[in-house]
Amino acid sequence: MRTWNVLLHGGDYNPGQWLESPEILREDVSLMKQAGCNAFSVGIFDWERLEPEEGRYELDWLAGIIDRLYENGIYTILATPSGARPGWMAEKYPEVMRVNEYGQRDRFSGRHNHCYTSPVYREKVRMMNRALSERFGRHPGVLLWHISNEYGGECHCELCQAAFRAWLRARYGTLENLNRAYWSSFWSHSYASWDQITSPLARVGETAHHTLVLDWKRFVTDQTADFMRAEKEAIRAFSDLPVTTNMMGFYDGLNYGKFRDVCDVISWDNYPHWHNGDEALPARTAMTHDMMRGLKPDEPFLMMESSPSATNWVDVAKLRRPGMHMLASLQAVAHGSDSVLYFQWRKGRGGCEKFHGAVVGHDGTANTRVFRDVAAVGERLKALQGLVGSAFPARVAVVHDMENRWALEEMKGLRNIQHQKGYMEDVLAMYRPFFRAGVNVDVVDMEADFSRYSLVVAPMLYMLRAGAAEKLARFVEQGGTLVGTGWTGIVDENDLCFLGSVPGQGLDTVFGLTETEIDALYDGDRNSLSLTPENGLPFLRRSYEVRELCQLVETTTARTLGVYGSDFYAGTPALTVNTYGRGRAYFLACRTEQPFLDQFLGYLSRTLGLRCLDVDLPEGVSLNERRDADGRAYYFFQNFSDHPAEVTLPAPLSEAETGQPCEGALHLPAYGVKVLTER
Amino acid sequence: MRTWNVLLHGGDYNPGQWLESPEILREDVSLMKQAGCNAFSVGIFDWERLEPEEGRYELDWLAGIIDRLYENGIYTILATPSGARPGWMAEKYPEVMRVNEYGQRDRFSGRHNHCYTSPVYREKVRMMNRALSERFGRHPGVLLWHISNEYGGECHCELCQAAFRAWLRARYGTLENLNRAYWSSFWSHSYASWDQITSPLARVGETAHHTLVLDWKRFVTDQTADFMRAEKEAIRAFSDLPVTTNMMGFYDGLNYGKFRDVCDVISWDNYPHWHNGDEALPARTAMTHDMMRGLKPDEPFLMMESSPSATNWVDVAKLRRPGMHMLASLQAVAHGSDSVLYFQWRKGRGGCEKFHGAVVGHDGTANTRVFRDVAAVGERLKALQGLVGSAFPARVAVVHDMENRWALEEMKGLRNIQHQKGYMEDVLAMYRPFFRAGVNVDVVDMEADFSRYSLVVAPMLYMLRAGAAEKLARFVEQGGTLVGTGWTGIVDENDLCFLGSVPGQGLDTVFGLTETEIDALYDGDRNSLSLTPENGLPFLRRSYEVRELCQLVETTTARTLGVYGSDFYAGTPALTVNTYGRGRAYFLACRTEQPFLDQFLGYLSRTLGLRCLDVDLPEGVSLNERRDADGRAYYFFQNFSDHPAEVTLPAPLSEAETGQPCEGALHLPAYGVKVLTER
Amino acid sequence: MRTWNVLLHGGDYNPGQWLESPEILREDVSLMKQAGCNAFSVGIFDWERLEPEEGRYELDWLAGIIDRLYENGIYTILATPSGARPGWMAEKYPEVMRVNEYGQRDRFSGRHNHCYTSPVYREKVRMMNRALSERFGRHPGVLLWHISNEYGGECHCELCQAAFRAWLRARYGTLENLNRAYWSSFWSHSYASWDQITSPLARVGETAHHTLVLDWKRFVTDQTADFMRAEKEAIRAFSDLPVTTNMMGFYDGLNYGKFRDVCDVISWDNYPHWHNGDEALPARTAMTHDMMRGLKPDEPFLMMESSPSATNWVDVAKLRRPGMHMLASLQAVAHGSDSVLYFQWRKGRGGCEKFHGAVVGHDGTANTRVFRDVAAVGERLKALQGLVGSAFPARVAVVHDMENRWALEEMKGLRNIQHQKGYMEDVLAMYRPFFRAGVNVDVVDMEADFSRYSLVVAPMLYMLRAGAAEKLARFVEQGGTLVGTGWTGIVDENDLCFLGSVPGQGLDTVFGLTETEIDALYDGDRNSLSLTPENGLPFLRRSYEVRELCQLVETTTARTLGVYGSDFYAGTPALTVNTYGRGRAYFLACRTEQPFLDQFLGYLSRTLGLRCLDVDLPEGVSLNERRDADGRAYYFFQNFSDHPAEVTLPAPLSEAETGQPCEGALHLPAYGVKVLTER
Repeated sequence: MRTWNVLLHGGDYNPGQWLESPEILREDVSLMKQAGCNAFSVGIFDWERLEPEEGRYELDWLAGIIDRLYENGIYTILATPSGARPGWMAEKYPEVMRVNEYGQRDRFSGRHNHCYTSPVYREKVRMMNRALSERFGRHPGVLLWHISNEYGGECHCELCQAAFRAWLRARYGTLENLNRAYWSSFWSHSYASWDQITSPLARVGETAHHTLVLDWKRFVTDQTADFMRAEKEAIRAFSDLPVTTNMMGFYDGLNYGKFRDVCDVISWDNYPHWHNGDEALPARTAMTHDMMRGLKPDEPFLMMESSPSATNWVDVAKLRRPGMHMLASLQAVAHGSDSVLYFQWRKGRGGCEKFHGAVVGHDGTANTRVFRDVAAVGERLKALQGLVGSAFPARVAVVHDMENRWALEEMKGLRNIQHQKGYMEDVLAMYRPFFRAGVNVDVVDMEADFSRYSLVVAPMLYMLRAGAAEKLARFVEQGGTLVGTGWTGIVDENDLCFLGSVPGQGLDTVFGLTETEIDALYDGDRNSLSLTPENGLPFLRRSYEVRELCQLVETTTARTLGVYGSDFYAGTPALTVNTYGRGRAYFLACRTEQPFLDQFLGYLSRTLGLRCLDVDLPEGVSLNERRDADGRAYYFFQNFSDHPAEVTLPAPLSEAETGQPCEGALHLPAYGVKVLTER
Repeated sequence: MRTWNVLLHGGDYNPGQWLESPEILREDVSLMKQAGCNAFSVGIFDWERLEPEEGRYELDWLAGIIDRLYENGIYTILATPSGARPGWMAEKYPEVMRVNEYGQRDRFSGRHNHCYTSPVYREKVRMMNRALSERFGRHPGVLLWHISNEYGGECHCELCQAAFRAWLRARYGTLENLNRAYWSSFWSHSYASWDQITSPLARVGETAHHTLVLDWKRFVTDQTADFMRAEKEAIRAFSDLPVTTNMMGFYDGLNYGKFRDVCDVISWDNYPHWHNGDEALPARTAMTHDMMRGLKPDEPFLMMESSPSATNWVDVAKLRRPGMHMLASLQAVAHGSDSVLYFQWRKGRGGCEKFHGAVVGHDGTANTRVFRDVAAVGERLKALQGLVGSAFPARVAVVHDMENRWALEEMKGLRNIQHQKGYMEDVLAMYRPFFRAGVNVDVVDMEADFSRYSLVVAPMLYMLRAGAAEKLARFVEQGGTLVGTGWTGIVDENDLCFLGSVPGQGLDTVFGLTETEIDALYDGDRNSLSLTPENGLPFLRRSYEVRELCQLVETTTARTLGVYGSDFYAGTPALTVNTYGRGRAYFLACRTEQPFLDQFLGYLSRTLGLRCLDVDLPEGVSLNERRDADGRAYYFFQNFSDHPAEVTLPAPLSEAETGQPCEGALHLPAYGVKVLTER
Repeated sequence: MRTWNVLLHGGDYNPGQWLESPEILREDVSLMKQAGCNAFSVGIFDWERLEPEEGRYELDWLAGIIDRLYENGIYTILATPSGARPGWMAEKYPEVMRVNEYGQRDRFSGRHNHCYTSPVYREKVRMMNRALSERFGRHPGVLLWHISNEYGGECHCELCQAAFRAWLRARYGTLENLNRAYWSSFWSHSYASWDQITSPLARVGETAHHTLVLDWKRFVTDQTADFMRAEKEAIRAFSDLPVTTNMMGFYDGLNYGKFRDVCDVISWDNYPHWHNGDEALPARTAMTHDMMRGLKPDEPFLMMESSPSATNWVDVAKLRRPGMHMLASLQAVAHGSDSVLYFQWRKGRGGCEKFHGAVVGHDGTANTRVFRDVAAVGERLKALQGLVGSAFPARVAVVHDMENRWALEEMKGLRNIQHQKGYMEDVLAMYRPFFRAGVNVDVVDMEADFSRYSLVVAPMLYMLRAGAAEKLARFVEQGGTLVGTGWTGIVDENDLCFLGSVPGQGLDTVFGLTETEIDALYDGDRNSLSLTPENGLPFLRRSYEVRELCQLVETTTARTLGVYGSDFYAGTPALTVNTYGRGRAYFLACRTEQPFLDQFLGYLSRTLGLRCLDVDLPEGVSLNERRDADGRAYYFFQNFSDHPAEVTLPAPLSEAETGQPCEGALHLPAYGVKVLTER
C-alpha cells in the first residue's frame, strides 16, 4: 500500500523543541534541501503541544510545519503522539501510567510507559488521533501515518490483569482446558477460579508455569496490537492513508508477526553498532532487514530510523568511518527498503538524547562531515529512483519464530547459562552462509507459506505450532529442501511435550530419525562432526568442531552423512539426509562451527541455484538483488571490509546510477557499495 | 527407626499428573518391576487432588495407587502435601502465602512459599495430615512418612515478626540481656521495646547488627522445625511409622542440626553436577553424604532424590557417561544410604521440570539408555541386600557448623570478596585428603560428641558454642588428635568477641599459642609455608604455597613445625603442634594448597590407623566401608576417573555380590565400582 | 579558626560502649597517654545514652569522660549525635526515618538514614545540640564541634518531595524557566504544575531528564548543608567553638564545595587500601588530601579518621606493612593536616565494625604491633610541633568539579561502559605527574580563584559554570598557563548544549580551536599521539598510545604540537598550544598514557619553577612542603615504595625533629618518611 513514488530520504523532525526559535525552523528547510531530503516524520512526541490542556487542541503550529515542508517539496510522515503523554494527563488520570512488574505505578516520567488497557488512555488517544486525522488526513503533503513510537513494554495494573484473564478465557474457554494446557497438576497448581491467575509479577507472581509466562507474552503482544488497531481506527474516520509503526528488529518483547495485518507498511529502526569488532555485524544487520521485510515479503519496507553518525546510548559511541554511512544506508535499500530515514534531523539542546547522532549538530551548520555524508546519500538515492517499489526476490527462508524463542528462553534444560539456549545465535549462524554467498533470504516465522521457497532452514524448532510440521512435510514432499537441527519438535503450542517419538507431529518421518537423548556440553567441552567419506558433499575438511549441544538420534530411513567423533556416542549420526517425497530433509544434530555451515549451506545454494549471480564473493562482500515491476534486476555489491575488494563479474552489467557499462573486475573501495543492473 | 528390610530403589512418583490416563498408570507398575524398583514417594504435591475444596477430602484415588503398588510388591513412602497448597486456600486465606524480604506477599504461585507461622496454614496442614494418617498410617504398604518437601525459605509477615519477637523474648528474657548480647550500644542502637525489633528486611531493616541477623536465621530454623514437629504430631494421631523430610545437603538456609530430633530418619536429595570438570566433585558429594548421615551417625540414611540422568535446572544439563549412574548410586550406599531413590519416575508433560531426568521419558518406553542404567542398579542392589541397616564406622570427624558458617558469612573482615571467608572451601579442602586416603569420615557440627573419634579436624572455628571448646579440650586431653586453623575461637555464640587471649575459652592452651594479627592477602598475593627440617613429618616438599589468609601467632607451649617463608612475618610459626594431656593439637595458621593437606592429613590417617584398609589408592579412586550387625565389613572401591584403575588389595577378599574370591590386583573400569567383603 | 596549638593525635573514642566496665574506661586513659595521644572525638553515636527517653537528657556520664580526659591532658572533639537516633524516636516519629529510592521507609535500623527535611528530626537535633552546647560549649577541654558523622545519602519522603519543589521554585521562579532549562519539550515532558515533579525515584521516577537528576543532587547537597547549618545554629546559642564535619574525600553523593562556608574547619576520613597493588594509590591519597584541603586552601585541615591497622569493610583487610602506618600518618601532615586521628580507639565487642582496626584490640593491651606503631607516631608528632597551623603553599591547581562529574556520569554518549566517562581517572592522571615531580597542588572546583596559581590543569570541563570560562580566560590572559582536554565546554550549568562553536563561552578563543566530532574507541582500539618534531617540547618518545577518546578539532590560532597517528583523522591536531594574552593554553585532545602526562606536566613544572625543591625524585618518592608563619619551610620526603630510596639534596638542610644537618644523599628506607627544614 505504497503512497510514495520516490525513495524517501529524511528522518525524525522535532520542530516542537524549537518553536521559540523561528529562525532555526526556517534554516531547517534550507538545510533539508541542501541535504537532498524529501520526507520527515513529524509529531512523534508532541502531545503536550497538540493538547496543552485537556480537550484544547492546538494544531495550527503543526499545520504550519507540514505546509512549509510541503511547499518546499518535502513530504510528511505524520505521527500520532501516543508514545508520551502530557503532564496534565498523568496527574489527572494516574491509570494511564504503567504498573511495573514490581507492582509500582510510574510517576509522570519517561516515555513508552502508558498502560495499553486503560480506557482513559485509549479514549484520549482516540480523540487525539481523530483530530489529527480530521485536520491532516488528506493533506497532500502527508504520505503515511506513523502510529505511536517503538511500541514495547508491559503493564501489570489491575485493568491489565482483568484483560489478561479475559484473554485467557477467550483462548481456553474453560478452566479445565487451561489447567490441562498448563499441566497445572504439577506442584498442585490448578486454577479453581479465573481470579487466581495473575501476570508473572516479579518475585511474587507465578514464573514456574512456563505456559502462563508464554501466554502473558502472547497477551502483551495482542493487547499492544489491539491498541494499535484502535489508534488506526480513530485515524480511519477521516483518512485512508497507510499506517505503519516503527518496529525494533529482533526486540523480544513483542511478536511482530501479530502486527502484520494492522500495519499497512512495515517500517523499523536500525541501529547497528558499526565498527564494534563483531565480524558478524553486517550479516546480523542484513538478517534484521530480511526479518522485518519478511513480515510482508512481497512489499518494500521503510527504514524509519537510523543514525547519521554515532548513537549516543550504545556502550561506545564510535564515529562512522568514511564510507560507512553510505554503505549502511544503501544496505537497507539493497534489502528492500524504499527509504533512508534518520533519527534525528537536529540535535536537541537537552534531554537524554542530546548527543545522539543527527544530520545537523549543535553548531547548526552544513559544514560537517556528517552533513556532507548525508547529502551524498541524498544525491545517490536520487540517481536510484528506479528502485522505488521494486521487489526482493528470495527463494530461501530462514525460520526465526518469536514464540519458539520465548518458549526456549523460558524452558529449563540444555544449557541455562550465557546466551541461554543459543537460538538467536543458531539463526544467525544459519543466515550467515547466505550473506557470504550472495543469496537473497526471507527470514520468516512458522506462520509463513513455505511453498514459495526452494530451501527452508529451520534451526531448533523446539515448539511446533501454526501447522508448521504439516507445512514443512508438504514442502519437502513437493520437492523442497529442508534443513533442521537438534532439539526440534519437542513441544506443542502450549509448551506441552509430545509423547512418543520426536521430532513430533510426523517430522520424525520427514527427517527419517528419532531424537533420543540430548547432551549439553560445558563451555570447555568439545566433540567433533566427522564427515563420512562417501557422503558425497564436497567439504574441505573431514572434521569440524562441535560444542554446546549434541542431539543423539536413531535413524530410521535417513542416510548418515556425518557422525560424532568422540565420547560415548562416537560413531552415531550427527548429520543426516532423508529423501521424503520429491524433496530432501537434512538434519544437523550438533551445534558446530561457522566454516561447516558456510560450506554446507553454500553448497546447497550453488547446487540449488539460489545465488543472485553466479559469482564467488570475497570475504566481507555481500550481494543482494532487487527486481522492479519490469523484471529489471538491480545488484547491490556491498563491501563491509575496511580494505578494497574485487569481484569478477559473471556477465556484462551496467552501473545503475550512470548507465555506464561494467564488466570483468568490479572494484569496491573499503566500505564501498556499487549498484549494477542488467544491460 | 528403620521399617524397611531391603535396600530401597525407586523414587518420586506423581500419578496425580496422569489421572486422566489410566493406561499410563497401569504401564507404570509394569515398568517399575522391570526396573527393579520397590519403593516410591507418593503424594508430594497432591493437595489440590486430596482436598479439592475446603474440607472435602478425596483420598480414594491415592488409596488405589498405594494398594496397587503394594499388590505389586512396591512400598510407599507417603508424603504430606504441605510443600504447595491449592488455589482456593491462597485465594481465601492470603495469610498462608509468604511475605518476602521486600515486604511483598506472594500471589498464588510457586511452591515452598507458605508462611511457617500462619495459624490457618498450620491448621489446614494438621487436618490434612490427620486425614492421611487415619487412612494410610497403618497401611502395610507404607514404610515411612515423607513430611512436606525440601523445607526452606523464610517469611517476613507480621505473624512471623511477632513470632520472632516472642522467640527473642524466650531466648533473652529481658531487653537488657538482648542489648548486651547485641552490643547494641554500637551506633546508638539499643532496643527500648520489643516492638522496635524487626527481621532483617531488605533495604529497610537492620542488617548491620550481625547478632540480630544470626538470631533471625536461628529463628527461621526453629520455626521451620516447629512446623515440621506440628506436621509430625498430626500424623502421630494414627500412625507410629517413622518420619523423615528430604533435606538439601549444605543448603545454608537452615541449620539441619535442629531437625535431628524431629526426624526419625535422615534423608536427602543429592544432585551433583557430574562431569562438570570440578575435580573435587566426587569428594564434595561424598562429604555431603557424610554430613547428612552425620546428623545421626549411628544409623543409615536414605538418598531420597537423585537424578537418573541429566538435571534440567543446572547450568549445563550434561548427560551421565556410561557407568556414572551406577557409580553415583552406589556411592550413596557406600556412605551409608539404604536407598537409591530418584526424582522422578516419569517426566511430566509440562511445568518447569518437564525436562528433568526421569526413569521413564516422554517416549514412555523401557527402551532407553537411562532405563537400562536404572534397571542395572536395581539388579545390583538386589544382590547387595546384606547391607540393609549396616553401619558406617568412622573414627574421623570433620567439623562443619552452620551457625559458625552464618556468623562467618555475616562478619565484615578478612576478605569480603569472592567466596567470602572461604569456610566451605576450607571444610572441603580438609575433607578431601580422607577421601583420597580411603578413610571413613563423619562430618559433624559443634553439638557432636567428639569423644567417639580419634581425629577431629575443625577448620576456622570462628564462633565457639555448644561447649565446643571444652569438649575439644577434653578430647585432646584424653588422647585425641585435633587439627585447627587460623581465625579460630574469636567470638562466642552471640558473635561477641572474646576479650583477652584467643583462641578463646581455653583453646589457646590446647593449641599452645595466641593468635595476634591476621593478614588477608589479595588474590594475586602469595606467601609460603616453609617446613622446618626437624619437624619429623615426612613431607615431599620443603615449601607450600600460601594464599588469602595468614594468621600470625605467638606460641607458648606449642612446637613450630613450619614457618612463613616471606613478608614481614617471615620465620614466624605457620604450622605448630602442641602436646596437651595425652593428645596432640595441630594448628595450621595459613590457608595453603591441597597437596600439603593431602600429605599432612594422609600422614595422620596412616599413623593413627584410620584407613578402611591398609592400601594406597590411585588418584580418583575412593574407598569406604560399611559394617553389618555381624561385624562383616563391605568395602566399596569407587573409581571416579574416566579411565581404568588398579588397586593392590592388602588381603584376600571376595566380591559381595557373587561371593567370588578376589585378591592381588583389583581392576576398576572407568567409573567402575566394586563391593568386596571379608571372606 | 584554629583552637588547637598542638598537632592532634587520637581519634574516635566510644566510652558509651563500655559504661558497664569502669575498669576499661580507667585503663583507656592510661593507654592513651602511653600512645602519645592528646585528642579524642567523643559522643558520635551516643544519642540513646544522652536522651534515653524523650526529653530526659543525661549528660553527666559524658561530663565525666570529658573531665577525666581533660585532667589527663587530653582534648575532646565533641560530636553531635545526629548520625543515629534512639529507638524511641524511630518508633514514635517514623517521619525521622528515610524513605529510599524505592519508596520504602526505613525501619529502626542502621545509621545515617534519617530524613534531612523532617521538622521533628530537626527539632530533636536542635534541642540535643543546644543541651550539649549549654553544658560543654565552653569547657576548656573541648576544642571543636564534630557535627554529626559522615553526612550522606538521600530521602525521598513526601516532606523531601515538597522541599525539592520549593527548592526548584526558588531556583527557577517560574515553570516556564524550569521547562526551558530542562529542555522538557523533549518527549513531551513539560511540567504544567509543580506537583508533577518528583525526585528521580528508582524504576518509577524520571531519570531521562538529566537536568532534573542534576538538580536533585544539588538539592540533596543543599538540604544536607542546610541541616548542618541548623545543627551549627543550635550550638551557637552557647558556644563559639569552631565546627567541622567529617567528610569522605571524593564521595560523590554531596558537593562538598557547598559546605565550605558552614564548616569552620575542614576535616575528613581517610581510608586508603594500602598494599592493594594499585601503583597510583599513594598519589590518589595525596590528591584526596589536596582536594579536601582545597576547600579552604589557606588553612590546615584535620584528618579526622584513619585506620591504625586493617580496615574491616574493604574487599581485603590486608595488614599494614612495617613503616606504612607512620608513612600514611605523616603523608596527611605533609599535605596540610594538623592531626593524625583514628577510627577507632578500642575495638567494640560486637556490631559490624568489631574487626575494624583500632589502637587497642580485643586483647586490651599495649603489647601489639599496632599499638607500638601508634605510639611511634605520637612520639614523632611531638617532635614536629612547629608545624601546627603552617601553610601548604601551592601554585598549581588541578580542577575537579563535582557538578561537572555528576553531569558527565549522567550524560549518555562517548563511552557508557566501565568507568563511564573516565573523568575521575583523568583527574588522577593529571595529578600524578605533580606527585612524581614534588609539586604542591591544590585540587579545586570551578568556584576557585584561579588567579592565585601559575598553572591550572582542567581536564574534561564538560559543563561550564560559576564563571569558569571567564575566570580561565582572564587567568591565561594575565600570564597563566592552562591545560585543557577534549570534551570541554559542551554544556552550561543546566546541562544545555552550547550552540555554535565549542568549547563554549569563549574558551574556543582561549584555546585557539574548535571541537568538531569526538570519536569513542572500544577497549581494544588504539590510536597514537604523534609529536611533531619541531614542537620544542623535550619528550623522550615520538609517539604515545591513545585510547578511549579522540576529540577532533580544527585549529584557528593554536599551534599544533602533536597529531593523531592513524585512522581517518590521522594528521589532525591532538595536542596544541595557543598564546592568549600573556599566557598559554594547551589543549590535549586525546586520552593518552601516563608517561606522556608525566613528561608533559613534569616539563611544565620544571620550566614554570613549580617544584618544592629543585630535585629529581626516584620513582615512588614524593615531596611536599609546608611553610610556617615565619616562612620556614618543612620538606616531607615520603617513600611509598617497598624498597629503600635515595634522594640527592639540592642544598644543605636539617632534620626537623632533631635539628641534625642533612646534605648530599638522603636515604629513605622502604616506606620511610623524613622531614627536613631549611637550616
